[in-house]
Amino acid sequence: MSITLPEGFTAAAAHCGVKRKRLDLALIATGGGAPVSAAGVFTRNRFAAAPVRVCRAHLKAAQGRAAAIVVNSGNANAGTGEQGLKDARAMSEATARAVGCKPEEVLVCSTGLIGRALPIDKITGGIARLDQQAGSDASAMAARAILTTDSVAKTAHVNGGGFTVGAIAKGSGMLRPDMATMLAFLTTDADVPPERLQAALAAAVADTFNTLTIDGAMSTNDTVLMLASGKRAAPAPGALEQAIRTVCEDLTLQMARDAEGRTKVVQVHVSGALDDPGARRVARAIAENQLIKCSWNGGDPYWGRILCEAGAVYDPFDPARARLSYGGVAIAEGGVEIPHDARRLAAHMKGEEIEIRLELGLGAGAGRIVTVDLGPGYIKENVKTS
Amino acid sequence: MSITLPEGFTAAAAHCGVKRKRLDLALIATGGGAPVSAAGVFTRNRFAAAPVRVCRAHLKAAQGRAAAIVVNSGNANAGTGEQGLKDARAMSEATARAVGCKPEEVLVCSTGLIGRALPIDKITGGIARLDQQAGSDASAMAARAILTTDSVAKTAHVNGGGFTVGAIAKGSGMLRPDMATMLAFLTTDADVPPERLQAALAAAVADTFNTLTIDGAMSTNDTVLMLASGKRAAPAPGALEQAIRTVCEDLTLQMARDAEGRTKVVQVHVSGALDDPGARRVARAIAENQLIKCSWNGGDPYWGRILCEAGAVYDPFDPARARLSYGGVAIAEGGVEIPHDARRLAAHMKGEEIEIRLELGLGAGAGRIVTVDLGPGYIKENVKTS
Repeated sequence: MSITLPEGFTAAAAHCGVKRKRLDLALIATGGGAPVSAAGVFTRNRFAAAPVRVCRAHLKAAQGRAAAIVVNSGNANAGTGEQGLKDARAMSEATARAVGCKPEEVLVCSTGLIGRALPIDKITGGIARLDQQAGSDASAMAARAILTTDSVAKTAHVNGGGFTVGAIAKGSGMLRPDMATMLAFLTTDADVPPERLQAALAAAVADTFNTLTIDGAMSTNDTVLMLASGKRAAPAPGALEQAIRTVCEDLTLQMARDAEGRTKVVQVHVSGALDDPGARRVARAIAENQLIKCSWNGGDPYWGRILCEAGAVYDPFDPARARLSYGGVAIAEGGVEIPHDARRLAAHMKGEEIEIRLELGLGAGAGRIVTVDLGPGYIKENVKTS
Repeated sequence: MSITLPEGFTAAAAHCGVKRKRLDLALIATGGGAPVSAAGVFTRNRFAAAPVRVCRAHLKAAQGRAAAIVVNSGNANAGTGEQGLKDARAMSEATARAVGCKPEEVLVCSTGLIGRALPIDKITGGIARLDQQAGSDASAMAARAILTTDSVAKTAHVNGGGFTVGAIAKGSGMLRPDMATMLAFLTTDADVPPERLQAALAAAVADTFNTLTIDGAMSTNDTVLMLASGKRAAPAPGALEQAIRTVCEDLTLQMARDAEGRTKVVQVHVSGALDDPGARRVARAIAENQLIKCSWNGGDPYWGRILCEAGAVYDPFDPARARLSYGGVAIAEGGVEIPHDARRLAAHMKGEEIEIRLELGLGAGAGRIVTVDLGPGYIKENVKTS
């Protein structure tokens, strides 16, 4: 059910011709075009795509309320200049007509290739023909219609106690903190004002999607949107926040597992930094280091290179205070290798989920980054001869 | 000839048993153990290896003078704690005995695997047996003895007019600005005080070796050392500086061409930033982006992703002001693709040397980064199953 599980939402999906054959158009809407509380978190890329710019403007103009989210896949409408902005607005106008709301109450997303003009007539024609449904089939089709290189659809939902949160997402490669080439759409039937929704969504994104890095790329289109229909009571303090975080964490791990060519999902936890941003910086540097990523692909616990990377990016780093473990097996302390259970370590490194904990011994700052290994699969997916 | 081309230097090399069979010990020395002007530039990694720490201390203690450089390959003496420091000092003591100078007049380097204790008895035994020669054979052997994963020895020399500069270097993978896993040793017969030598070397390293990034790694051991015998006259202002820069640039491109698994050498030039560090930051981000590196391997001019990366890392970036060209073919301007000679572009992308120029249109800041593509060859070299 995911996005139609919370009361008050319909979904629709279709093939309109941006892609050759597969579903490429999705809609999430409230009943009868009524605007509800809305929130959005966007890429911070200065080369942000047209739909991101239109979404930001619409959320502002409609004072944090929206009635529909429309998404096309196959073309990102990025690097398309003024024409791109016109096309994104045309998508919102066509959707406003179909749903029965104002254009600024429509949030627009595009994902796919960069630098090519949208086939806008196909898209607006497709929007006019969309068949909105409240059932689970429509929700599942919408989840498929937003995919690009993903191999599986990603959905999640949670019962918050008196309200529910549902979500769909896409993203399988080219990901890193600040949401590179990922889209996620959340719905809830909780009664919550736009400000609380925005704060809850932003906090959850920071701790989940923005801790995911696949290959250090940061996209032009990344967007997380949420609508709250208000059909149920207002959630207790913290309850909505926790539910959103749970859904976002679930989708984050689903995206990591679906990353192009990966064989492992790796969580890098850094603690004992002087502050949280410092800890996350070290974790990210480890997670994005090509050599370290290759070592994971081979199941090799490359402890020296991990300390080396920490020393490279974090000035307060002191190897004498550092402790490093993989899957609970402490392997290095004080800058040198320590006796450890090599068999248990090897078993952990052979698994599909690797956990690395680096304690810096300097302060209370902590941070986590989720990533994947780098091996022949990634290269095969991403080296394309023109 | 390289390092023995400038008057006043001898070289020696041997196999002492750190590696199985190949040469693993090198020495560069002045005649009769006389200390001469010396300069050094080192990794800024906080997890710096023992020999780096000993070099820094010796240069300081001997007030910028040294009589010998000793190097072992096969083991980096990094992540080796207190024992590592003792071993690095033992190397300098053995060298001081062999050359006839004080231990603090010896500069020590190690390169190879991290985290294992040096076989110090083999090394000190090898040092005692070294046969110092002034001829070109000794210089060529020393150039080979410092290699690790390199496929070719790297040497360079230049006639500065009244003096010469010679050099050897190693480094073929795991490189990035701030000199990851690279060593270079320069000699000159010019008469130059330590301060001028240090300033000239530091400036040249910043513009050459530190613009090279292969895979974003930053090593624990990177070191560039230079000795000046003073056998010739003092060079004219700028002449020595230019000669050192020429030699370092030559070695930088040799290292890029020898990078593990590369098929292309790519120079990324960014201009029009607000300042030079900003320009270099953008160039480095482009050069270290996994997806962009993969696109070069396939010969694909991925212009949208390059602007996207600039937008991700540089806040003042404005796509409307940006201009991008490959090999002199302008492909994007104002954030969109422009008409261009596709055949000429494709021919450039198929070549072994790719030149990218990104003009940001914001100011006068400029910077360059040298890098390579990412393809199956790199993965094959760097994924090792334990």
